[in-house]
Amino acid sequence: MGKSNGRGKYLMGRVTARRRVRHVTTNDTVARPETLVVEEPLEIRVNGTPLTVTMRTPGSDVELAQGFLLTEGIISRRDDIVSVRYCRGTESDGTNSYNVLDVTLGPDVPVPDVDPTRNFYTTSSCGVCGKASLEAVRLISKHCPGDDPSTIGAETLSALPDKLRDGQKVFAATGGLHGAALFESDGTALVIREDIGRHNAVDKVIGWALERRRIPLSGTVLLVSGRASFELTQKAVMAGIPVLAAVSAPSSLAVDLASQSGLTLVAFLRGHSMNIYNRPDRIRR
Amino acid sequence: MGKSNGRGKYLMGRVTARRRVRHVTTNDTVARPETLVVEEPLEIRVNGTPLTVTMRTPGSDVELAQGFLLTEGIISRRDDIVSVRYCRGTESDGTNSYNVLDVTLGPDVPVPDVDPTRNFYTTSSCGVCGKASLEAVRLISKHCPGDDPSTIGAETLSALPDKLRDGQKVFAATGGLHGAALFESDGTALVIREDIGRHNAVDKVIGWALERRRIPLSGTVLLVSGRASFELTQKAVMAGIPVLAAVSAPSSLAVDLASQSGLTLVAFLRGHSMNIYNRPDRIRR
Repeated sequence: MGKSNGRGKYLMGRVTARRRVRHVTTNDTVARPETLVVEEPLEIRVNGTPLTVTMRTPGSDVELAQGFLLTEGIISRRDDIVSVRYCRGTESDGTNSYNVLDVTLGPDVPVPDVDPTRNFYTTSSCGVCGKASLEAVRLISKHCPGDDPSTIGAETLSALPDKLRDGQKVFAATGGLHGAALFESDGTALVIREDIGRHNAVDKVIGWALERRRIPLSGTVLLVSGRASFELTQKAVMAGIPVLAAVSAPSSLAVDLASQSGLTLVAFLRGHSMNIYNRPDRIRR
Repeated sequence: MGKSNGRGKYLMGRVTARRRVRHVTTNDTVARPETLVVEEPLEIRVNGTPLTVTMRTPGSDVELAQGFLLTEGIISRRDDIVSVRYCRGTESDGTNSYNVLDVTLGPDVPVPDVDPTRNFYTTSSCGVCGKASLEAVRLISKHCPGDDPSTIGAETLSALPDKLRDGQKVFAATGGLHGAALFESDGTALVIREDIGRHNAVDKVIGWALERRRIPLSGTVLLVSGRASFELTQKAVMAGIPVLAAVSAPSSLAVDLASQSGLTLVAFLRGHSMNIYNRPDRIRR
């Protein structure tokens, strides 16, 4: 795949930024520089046509775009993408902005319908009105995890949040990032990604797997640093992940989607305690 | 304004839902019911045309829609809206889904451009490519807070997070909600709202103020329970709020937007400590 992604160092330098801040405590006020997480818009184009803009932390942009296209149901495998490249747009000083990615799809892949009524973040194509809520926003996964026979030990699962936290290097510096990580069922970390947007962190992880032809992600666990929303749960289902674990609370619609999709949903994963909302047979005691 | 919002009790009942869960600890596994926060799609239509779908916690839907239209720059005052009503869509059992709101704008208000390249969540109308990042996603506020002369005492500000937490009744039950609150500069709470989406909680608060003709929100402080992203910062600026305070970290773009808009941005507001990123003159020692 043709990707002009050879700017790793440049992008890494854009993950954090320094700003002056006034730090106030009861007895003191100190002006000092501080490290913040960078947030910038990324426009994703398909065959030259703008599809969406997401506010993201720069880095792993190609993974992000690929994961987004997979979890939105626009592609289902790596070979659906011919190339991903940064648009040659320029900042006012003449440098590439690195904020626009153009994805070229294979000739057999239907170009996504950029219907104005369709919001890509919430994946509804109208009709919310007369349908049950879940059906209205649900995408159909080609990689539904229902038949995945893999299991993971409860003790192995309980150890994953510390591994994610240890891998969140930018969070440690800024306190401002969500994390997502993919693990094998023996607890081995495959990939950890951070982003200012929860959904972006997950898309980066799934895009990483797409690159390596690991879709569907059978036998894996996706761990997210925050809550399990409908959106994140849907992304797991679209990638064929059998176990989604969250450090914080799930939503009602996330639990309902897990039930309908055969996904094992674990939340409040803290210490040696966890809540299992569906398919507890995949968690071994 | 004509609003079919007389279903307060019904909506309240939809804020939380009960689901069966298997609670696992080191020594025990217990099956029990648990209270979860409800997440459902809300489609916002303008003059009958679908504009966006957001995943939200039901309740204060009219405030949410009005706040969204204000902070996206589609309206600038209450009188720009003629009516807000739930669409008469039905679930399969014949009941109203209460998941579609149709907003009718006044005859002088331009109908929003539902351009397929425009993503309402990130408010970019393409052109990300050749422009500096901030300019590409920035909306122009008619209520910029730069000239607002109000101030708030540091001690008063430090007391606000506890007030927000005390008001987050659904969070206390579910652990799954973001909170946003608006305060007078003497620390009096005006309104507290919760939602599974950070941006929705803020839109509900601002929509509440729009209802009461309190836009621009001069002399107020907006407090959010999480991080200060670009999106939330932009919503504060669009509503003319002079002080935005966040319990957690800000992003680089949030700090940059605060600087350009004359907004006082406070983050890491914890105990008697805080970081002030712009216009510290509004925070009195």
